Amino acid sequence: MDAKEFRKRGREMVDTSPITLENIRERDVVHNVSPGYLKDLLPEEAPKDPENFDEVFKDIERVIMPGVTHWHSPYFHGYFAPGSSYPSILGDMLSDAIGCIGFSWVTSPACTELEVVTTDWLGKMIGLPEEFLHCTEGPGGGVIQSTASETVLLCLLAARTRIVNKYKKENPEMNEVEIISKLVGYCSTQANSSVERSGLLGAVQMTKLIPDSKHSVRGETLKQAIKRDKDKETFHFCEEEGIWLHIDAAYAGSAFVCPEFRHYMKGIEYAETISINPHKWMLINFDLSVMWIKDSTLLVDAFNVDPVYLKHVNQGKVPDYRHWQIPLGRRFRSLKLWFMLRSYGVSGVQSYIRKHVNLAKQFEKLAREDGRFQIVAEVVMGLVCFKLKGPNELNEKLMEEIIEDKRIFLIPAFDKNVYFLRFAVCAERTNSRDVEYSFGVIRDCANNVLAVHSKIPLKHTPVVVDIDQQPRYKGKLISHNHYSDDEI
Amino acid sequence: MDAKEFRKRGREMVDTSPITLENIRERDVVHNVSPGYLKDLLPEEAPKDPENFDEVFKDIERVIMPGVTHWHSPYFHGYFAPGSSYPSILGDMLSDAIGCIGFSWVTSPACTELEVVTTDWLGKMIGLPEEFLHCTEGPGGGVIQSTASETVLLCLLAARTRIVNKYKKENPEMNEVEIISKLVGYCSTQANSSVERSGLLGAVQMTKLIPDSKHSVRGETLKQAIKRDKDKETFHFCEEEGIWLHIDAAYAGSAFVCPEFRHYMKGIEYAETISINPHKWMLINFDLSVMWIKDSTLLVDAFNVDPVYLKHVNQGKVPDYRHWQIPLGRRFRSLKLWFMLRSYGVSGVQSYIRKHVNLAKQFEKLAREDGRFQIVAEVVMGLVCFKLKGPNELNEKLMEEIIEDKRIFLIPAFDKNVYFLRFAVCAERTNSRDVEYSFGVIRDCANNVLAVHSKIPLKHTPVVVDIDQQPRYKGKLISHNHYSDDEI
Repeated sequence: MDAKEFRKRGREMVDTSPITLENIRERDVVHNVSPGYLKDLLPEEAPKDPENFDEVFKDIERVIMPGVTHWHSPYFHGYFAPGSSYPSILGDMLSDAIGCIGFSWVTSPACTELEVVTTDWLGKMIGLPEEFLHCTEGPGGGVIQSTASETVLLCLLAARTRIVNKYKKENPEMNEVEIISKLVGYCSTQANSSVERSGLLGAVQMTKLIPDSKHSVRGETLKQAIKRDKDKETFHFCEEEGIWLHIDAAYAGSAFVCPEFRHYMKGIEYAETISINPHKWMLINFDLSVMWIKDSTLLVDAFNVDPVYLKHVNQGKVPDYRHWQIPLGRRFRSLKLWFMLRSYGVSGVQSYIRKHVNLAKQFEKLAREDGRFQIVAEVVMGLVCFKLKGPNELNEKLMEEIIEDKRIFLIPAFDKNVYFLRFAVCAERTNSRDVEYSFGVIRDCANNVLAVHSKIPLKHTPVVVDIDQQPRYKGKLISHNHYSDDEI
Repeated sequence: MDAKEFRKRGREMVDTSPITLENIRERDVVHNVSPGYLKDLLPEEAPKDPENFDEVFKDIERVIMPGVTHWHSPYFHGYFAPGSSYPSILGDMLSDAIGCIGFSWVTSPACTELEVVTTDWLGKMIGLPEEFLHCTEGPGGGVIQSTASETVLLCLLAARTRIVNKYKKENPEMNEVEIISKLVGYCSTQANSSVERSGLLGAVQMTKLIPDSKHSVRGETLKQAIKRDKDKETFHFCEEEGIWLHIDAAYAGSAFVCPEFRHYMKGIEYAETISINPHKWMLINFDLSVMWIKDSTLLVDAFNVDPVYLKHVNQGKVPDYRHWQIPLGRRFRSLKLWFMLRSYGVSGVQSYIRKHVNLAKQFEKLAREDGRFQIVAEVVMGLVCFKLKGPNELNEKLMEEIIEDKRIFLIPAFDKNVYFLRFAVCAERTNSRDVEYSFGVIRDCANNVLAVHSKIPLKHTPVVVDIDQQPRYKGKLISHNHYSDDEI
């Protein structure tokens, strides 16, 4: 394909409906295939000779689209909002074309420096303390990571290294792994599975803490856990050095662009690191997760095989970002953030967030007015947790009915012995009529379920939850089934 | 930006020169900026209100392009070939627009299944043993990772877990970290820095082995190292279980698409895992690194918090790819691989590889014919390691001259006390005239250096290399300086 054909194909591509998503409401939100469908549609080997691109183009609708679950459909209410916007797609096009591998400043200065500027822009937009910004004195700053789950692992490893180094210095006879064996990490029982997994990957024991009735782990709970661990003599290393508090605000963090949500950031000054995912709730295509750190030397020194050299590079405050992440290679991802921020402006991003929050409130109102539903948790942002009044089994039936109905996509969750449904406002263009439509589907499904079950007495299945384990429902792990709300 | 404007802007984007790279030979291959240049060109905060996209568009040339090092210029000879092609860019556009987050089959079946098909296509193209493919019986298969460095870490962690689990089963009284403290990994002194880093991240001790005169670590060297470690009683865990051999063929692996290079794969049947980077030498935009594993349960079981559930998912051989990688979220990356393979065909990829190899041979010939140069290592693929006959300092001067000249971009390296230059064939469209041009630049620079230095006697700077450390040149780490050939 030469430049001339690329221009032709590129124009066809931006004109086509899978790209513009203009007919998204006409497409089924849920895929329509069975496992293994795709291999029957394609040859077993790559073609020996070039095919005409027309053939490839046709296969988008024949092979790919039937197997797509449309995250950007206004009828998609699963997981969390998946970021996307036209300017973000344009930014990625440019990033691909420039095609630099920005692992150090010289490999494309613009790649490093636009990331410095845009992570500062974003940090200011959400009201981060100054220590987290590049533009202030000191070793703080933001960096683009692939995912919040990767960031959790990175922070755990950096925290581990800080403690190990400190302890080895004071006790040169101690083995690194002996020290690691005494470390403990803490997270909520409601934390994403990636937190537990980072403990497995990093060989650090994780303790899960039980949140309060508002789903928050309180300081008192943490204090008690620390005290218990100190009594077992496992914790004293961490405490001596100070705890590394990492805030994973992957979804909710984007809301801090609106001042009315910033009260949830109270206490952020105690954090070493914080991450938010613009690829979730801020109109940016996956992947673009931003992490800010107060003291980047904690990352750079942790896994760096050349501290002498790096000190040179850091002069002038140009970060050598490959030392701020797990992989070495990196794309020019800040372009899509830059394009989006300039095309929407801060006010545009605020409107988008507020629209989603209002649509969630609208859904809450519809559910409450119906009378048969119950709201399970306070509606704070773009998520409504709800259920039919009645036992878990009734709601499990409702979920099955919605899955079979296929007009909308949403997922269940399970907490404190209660099985419920999650309605997340996801697509950028979801509007008030879409929410009415989706609620209508749920009402239809509820009617069906209640009509059947009013005749058959529902059997309540007792559920036992071991708080040291992942929540389970009928033996299945809730947070790991197909419909989990995993950190992405 | 609505769909109508996106179509307009998208067309402008595919027409513009930073995207088509048509005028790439007219652009300076090396950026033309100083550290910190970009922040002076942009406001300190994101705009409050939306800007017209014309303004954003203008800033591509004003702000970004001066700070770009052009990896796709035919005069770029640094690091390794950076993959890119028009069909690959089109595939990424579609991936962005579909915008699914493919962390499990249901989140978009096409995303998982096209990855299964295309990694099989690629595995067959390079002649991998059947155990590495999805289409055969058994737990083997390919998966798309971000980078080879991430894959190295993943394999190290999985290998670590395999040994730990085995040993804990046999000796329940043993602590996990006690076992980890006894493990050893082996790699070449010439291995990429990411290998050493994975040891730091994974808390596993790494031992570096000295390669032979052809830069290969031989079996005998490994055997001796194992024997030494056994005498120190650090190694017996690994050996009992069998060594986990991981082959990082990030660059060279793409060449196996040509049968004449497959003899380098001899012994691959002993490997547990192998990875190649189509985002290096196979026309695919970063990031797309493919890893194949013979027994995927070694990955899935290693860090899985729900083995019961997964056994269910694996029925029917649809992999749950989020358990095959470190992050949880994943993009629809197989689209760009699919678009490229169909547009080029196997024969097109073979031609591309052979063209690069021939261009490297052409450069070698020019350098040998000149008489003043020496070829440092056998030219096998698209890389020529060369130097001026004479001391290190002379070649250091030559490198400085080339950097100052700015017409081409290449990087130095250092091995066994010898400082030399690396000429890598990188861009897809590099042709024979470009190689002549680049060699001409090097000859000019050599003339200048020799003219000066024939009058001033060169002082030879003795270099001490500690084989247990990274190679150093005058106190600086060679493999970590700005011009390193790090794994990307």
